[in-house]
Amino acid sequence: MRITLVGSGNVATHLGAGLKNAGHQIVQVWSRHLQNAALLAYHLKAESIDELNNIYEGTDLIIISVKDDAVETVASFITLKNVLVVHTSGAVGIQVLEKYFANCGVFYPLQTFSKTREIDFLTVPLCIESTDKNSTALLLELARTISNQVNYINSAQRRILHLAAVFACNFPNYLYSVSAGLLKGQQMDFELLKPLILETALKVQQFLPTEMQTGPAVRGDQKTMAAHLELLKQHPKLQEIYRLLSQGIIKMDE
Amino acid sequence: MRITLVGSGNVATHLGAGLKNAGHQIVQVWSRHLQNAALLAYHLKAESIDELNNIYEGTDLIIISVKDDAVETVASFITLKNVLVVHTSGAVGIQVLEKYFANCGVFYPLQTFSKTREIDFLTVPLCIESTDKNSTALLLELARTISNQVNYINSAQRRILHLAAVFACNFPNYLYSVSAGLLKGQQMDFELLKPLILETALKVQQFLPTEMQTGPAVRGDQKTMAAHLELLKQHPKLQEIYRLLSQGIIKMDE
Repeated sequence: MRITLVGSGNVATHLGAGLKNAGHQIVQVWSRHLQNAALLAYHLKAESIDELNNIYEGTDLIIISVKDDAVETVASFITLKNVLVVHTSGAVGIQVLEKYFANCGVFYPLQTFSKTREIDFLTVPLCIESTDKNSTALLLELARTISNQVNYINSAQRRILHLAAVFACNFPNYLYSVSAGLLKGQQMDFELLKPLILETALKVQQFLPTEMQTGPAVRGDQKTMAAHLELLKQHPKLQEIYRLLSQGIIKMDE
Repeated sequence: MRITLVGSGNVATHLGAGLKNAGHQIVQVWSRHLQNAALLAYHLKAESIDELNNIYEGTDLIIISVKDDAVETVASFITLKNVLVVHTSGAVGIQVLEKYFANCGVFYPLQTFSKTREIDFLTVPLCIESTDKNSTALLLELARTISNQVNYINSAQRRILHLAAVFACNFPNYLYSVSAGLLKGQQMDFELLKPLILETALKVQQFLPTEMQTGPAVRGDQKTMAAHLELLKQHPKLQEIYRLLSQGIIKMDE
């Protein structure tokens, strides 16, 4: 397929590479800042543009991959109306595009992307939605050329999925940073916790997290929990987090 | 070394295998229940016992690997007094053993062990403590035969380390279970979140978690956070967790 990427951030970068590797042609990359468009376009052997009314009419698909709160504005400036247009956001509904385009959809890659790490796109779950049958079929087919895990997810589901991703990724990462801070306070290296963090994530690739729960809370070990809260007495916010998450674990089976 | 394992749970099982693979001899395995001792002893080609006064006098090291609150009781029943004795607990101080033995220490493997998963013991950080120089040297040397990451960690540090491990392992696992529950409520498969969970843990193997923080809270995206809280309105406890952890992320740089 001939694809136009609108956006040049982390998602556009990784998705563009995944599409190109699968043999698709990225015809153009748009960014508000031409130099950002040019950098990504260079890697994808595409043309760079900074005007949304310069999108190539022969393109088969426009992928809008910009910040959540910019999706609608960007969509409103796209003058081509007869092309399939999708966005890549977990938090934005499909109706934002329906206002402007007859054929539209969502192409949401559920992964945390960073500029500094390569991702094997085949392992990235792709969540597809569209309002019409033909576009759905086309998007599912396209998705399957770049990912081994393609799912049809409607907007209501995607909202929950995006929320769940906060619990599965953003919050654990914050807790890693808390643990790193605790170690630093006692002149210990975060290196010590890395194998534990990795094994905890590996376990749930194979088993359900409820079955893998360990630690003082699930054992009902009040003595250790009290000792931990005492160690946190200088950090009332962390005490509160400790209490709340421990309560959650204790009630997990209910 | 000739080693006696007191205990037959997850830690004893994985540690025993690690020691045996490194060429040490597990001479005995003790458990309150002889059949548990026998099962592990069979794998380690050791003798099984269920009486603590039957520990072989020629052993070089006794490793007590039982539940935290049983360490002291078990230690008090060991009649051999002239052998080096260690426990493997993150939460129990060394003084519990000092009451009973002239030479004692701690041999704490910082990992989450389960019966159902193999662990490469070389990757498990080992935290060593002892009250005398000779025992320290001996334990460090032993530890280095089975792990690539050996650290001297005193009791005060180990208490914090154990607490940090709750934040780095037990709490993230609980959050995984929350995310799985949210998906289930909308007929979605936990499979969708697995690559995200793994990548989040992989990122911090390479970079600091504070540098890797993503999501609405770190972006200051109030609109998405408000939408997420609205989605959680049937789950006041999860709302509270969402608020507290998001506040933590927002204040991370302070």
